[in-house]
Parts: sequence; structure tokens; C-alpha cells
Amino acid sequence: MTGALMAIGGAIDLKRPTLVQEFYHRAGGSQARLIILPTASSLPDSGVELREALIKEGLHQPPLILPVRSRAAAQDPALVDPIRAASGVFFTGGNQARLSSWLGGTLLESELHAAYQAGALIAGSSAGAAALSAVMIAFGRGGATPRQRSAQFAPGLGFTDQVIFDQHFRQRDRLGRLLYAVALHPGMLGVGVDENTAAILQGHSLEICGQNAVTIVDGRPIQDTDVADVSGASPVAVSGARLHVLTHGCAFDLASRQAQIPPKTLKVS
Amino acid sequence: MTGALMAIGGAIDLKRPTLVQEFYHRAGGSQARLIILPTASSLPDSGVELREALIKEGLHQPPLILPVRSRAAAQDPALVDPIRAASGVFFTGGNQARLSSWLGGTLLESELHAAYQAGALIAGSSAGAAALSAVMIAFGRGGATPRQRSAQFAPGLGFTDQVIFDQHFRQRDRLGRLLYAVALHPGMLGVGVDENTAAILQGHSLEICGQNAVTIVDGRPIQDTDVADVSGASPVAVSGARLHVLTHGCAFDLASRQAQIPPKTLKVS
Repeated sequence: MTGALMAIGGAIDLKRPTLVQEFYHRAGGSQARLIILPTASSLPDSGVELREALIKEGLHQPPLILPVRSRAAAQDPALVDPIRAASGVFFTGGNQARLSSWLGGTLLESELHAAYQAGALIAGSSAGAAALSAVMIAFGRGGATPRQRSAQFAPGLGFTDQVIFDQHFRQRDRLGRLLYAVALHPGMLGVGVDENTAAILQGHSLEICGQNAVTIVDGRPIQDTDVADVSGASPVAVSGARLHVLTHGCAFDLASRQAQIPPKTLKVS
Repeated sequence: MTGALMAIGGAIDLKRPTLVQEFYHRAGGSQARLIILPTASSLPDSGVELREALIKEGLHQPPLILPVRSRAAAQDPALVDPIRAASGVFFTGGNQARLSSWLGGTLLESELHAAYQAGALIAGSSAGAAALSAVMIAFGRGGATPRQRSAQFAPGLGFTDQVIFDQHFRQRDRLGRLLYAVALHPGMLGVGVDENTAAILQGHSLEICGQNAVTIVDGRPIQDTDVADVSGASPVAVSGARLHVLTHGCAFDLASRQAQIPPKTLKVS
């Protein structure tokens, strides 16, 4: 059975256990075999604090940080080998174009897909969240208005072709570029994930977890847009998009395009 | 059985029958049920000359030009209905962002996918070729050097997630932007199609047909690239990409990544 995707909006608060515990439990709890990929980051210690936080939850085997920072490493069978048996993989933040340009078309990428097909949880924070989809936002500009060229897209790692994830969403004012992305192809579901918050996609169910919110832009009901005709960096008109802002415990069904907001008894730990 | 994709680089010479006949025969010959979608174009008579050229080849039913130029039209069941029975669909040129922004997530898009899954030939020229893939080049700049931002991507119509098509390729000097696209995710096969030339993808076989050439950029052997770190519109370094320039009668296997160049006895009609 295909696994799940966990897109985290960056800035995980490791002192509040919500997201770390969610990743830990969904990846198999104490029996989990976890891989951390610091590929997107230019910091040599990327993933180390997350590793410590996960060990604190209780693990039979400590998470493995795979030092993949080149295409050669991503093609090295010895280095890539542990991915096949992983129950959970975590992409740290950094620059999502490193993930696509270093991992795209490599052995590591195909082993990640094999693990995902076999049921592994594939998580990413910040750049790691952006790169999960088939079309990713590589970089762009903030602002509430969709503008031509406000997002630069690139092929991502392709775990889903239904969704485009954005991250640091409310903190960096990214509704404009997500609307732009959805206007360009209204069949895509735009999912903007706030910091210290996760959108978890399993089958056609998207669940929200964490401190802040997930903003969902459903493009299918869009009636009209002039995105094909606007030049430069001018504003793009979009009519009829459906917007959902969902918090911890809420869910969204990709098939019915309906959100579920639970009664107010759930609390973020 | 899934159908085939026919990506034409624009500027079809309707007086030389090669591409028209190739489309006609692959779509079923005299029994073909053909749909022309002028959606990408702003010209009211887009598709009319192609329709006449196809009728001349001999058809039991003349091709239907579907006037879909809005999201409302793409959601209209009566208008969309003939697509389900089509054996060949042809997207004219124009602006590929019209195709994605007007058809993305609509009934028409899903009927096109159903027809393709049932064996239909899906062809597109110029903008129509660009829009066939999951990640498409929406617009960009010419030049032989890959540069940051030299192509702007968008989600396309998604008939293939293995290939990125570019068009008017040699005529508009687009090798740089195709290399840029492939550097961003070297798992993608970059396929640059010249004018009056077609790349025909069926299963993992790509065949070349027509007057000029198809340039294939295979990113998998890329050893290194700095695409993640280059800013502005600066040149992007890429090492190790494999390049093929193939002409009429040649083929390329996507699984083995090998080109086949036949003995020089074939002639373009």
C-alpha cells in the first residue's frame, strides 16, 4: 500500500512535540526505520537536532542521516541502500532546487519511490515539503495578489501530481503565488502550509496537524482567469477559486473536495 | 491500450503531406474520428486549414473543431461529449497557458485523458505540443546557454511525466532553456522539436517524423549543476548531459535511453 506524504511548513518547534510525534507514530513508532536527508541544506549539521528529538521519542534504531549532497552520492548504491527498508524518510529544509537537481533521475529518487509505494511515510519541511510534488514552486515572491512570474516552477520529486505544496505560507505572505500556481492549472490543489504545521496526504485524504493553519486553494471551480494573457509581473485575475483555511484536526478530501472541521474539543499538545 | 502523443514543433507545412498523413494514419485513417481543439489560439479560424488538409486525405467523418475558449465551455457536457469517441485529437498552436488555465481540472481534460487511455492519438503543434506534458514550459527566452529563469514552467495537461517538450526549437534557439529545464530535474527527458517536425511518443518509444530535427537532452547522466545556487538570470552550469539530434526515421527508447539512427535510405515525402 502506498505510504503517506507529510508536508511541513518549516520552522518546526522541536520543544513542542506535536509534529515530531506525528512523524514518529506514522512512520512506525519505536520500530520505525528512519532516514533523514539533509540534501536541501547547506548547513553541515542539518537534521541533527531532529534526529535527537526522534531518539527521545524512543527508537529501536536511531535515524540515519544520509550525507547526500551531489548527484554522485545519489547514485551510490552503498549509500542509497538503507532507503529501501525505511519506514519513514524526512527531507530537511534548504533549497528545493538542490533536491530536484541532485536527486532527479537518480537511484536514490527511484528507491524513495519504491519505499513510498511499499508504504513508507515521506516527510519534508520547508524546501523538503515543496519538493514532494510533481510540479513544485522552486522560488518566487511574496504578496497577497497573484502576479505573472510570482512563482518559478520546476519539476519536483513527483510523489503526488494532484497537489502543489507551498510552505512558510502565512509567515511569508504567499497566497498570491499559490493562487497564481492554481490559476495556471486549476486542476491542481494548492496547499499552503504554515510554519510548525503539517499537511498529511494519504490516498485522497489530507489531514492537518500542528500549531498554525493550512490554506487550501481549490482551482476546479475557477470560472475565468487572464493568466495566459498577462505580461511582465502584472497582477493576474482569477474568479471563483474556493478557499479553505484549516487547523489542527481538520481534514480535506481530495476526491469530494470537501473540508471537515471537527467540533472544538481537540487540543494541540 | 494507452494511445500515443504527437508533439509537433509548429509551422506545419500543409502543402507537404508528411505530418498531416502521419497524424491521419496513426489516428485511424479513413475511419478516424478527429477533434481539433483551437483553444490555445486567439485566431477565430484556427484549425480550419488543418481540417481541410485532413479531409483531403479521405475521411468518413470530417474533423470536428470544438470551440472551447473558456472554462465554462470546457465544463459543458454537450460540447465535450464527442471527445470520448475520438480516435485522434489535435491541439493547435497559440498560448499554452490558455490550454492549462482553461482546461485544467475540467470535464474536457478528464475526457481527453479517458480517450488517451482508450488508445486515442493526442497531437499538438507549438503551444499544443508544449502543453502535453505534466510540467510544461509556459514561456521563456531563447539562447544557447541555460540561464536561471530562462524558462517559466507551469503544470501542463499531464499526458506524460517523463518528458518536457519544447517547440520551434532550432528556429528560436531554445537549447539553453531546455538544458535549464533538465538541469532542474535531470530525470526529465528534454525533447526539443523543430518546426514542421514531430516527436511521437508511444509507450517508451519516441519516433521522429518530418522535415527538420528533434533534439533530445538526457539529464540522467548529469554529473553536477549549480542550478540551485545561481541567482538572477545568470548562466547555469551543467556537466555530463547527453545530447541526441535525431531526424526523420530515427527513434529513441526512453527505457534504455538509446537512440536508433536508421541507414540512409528513408526519405521525407
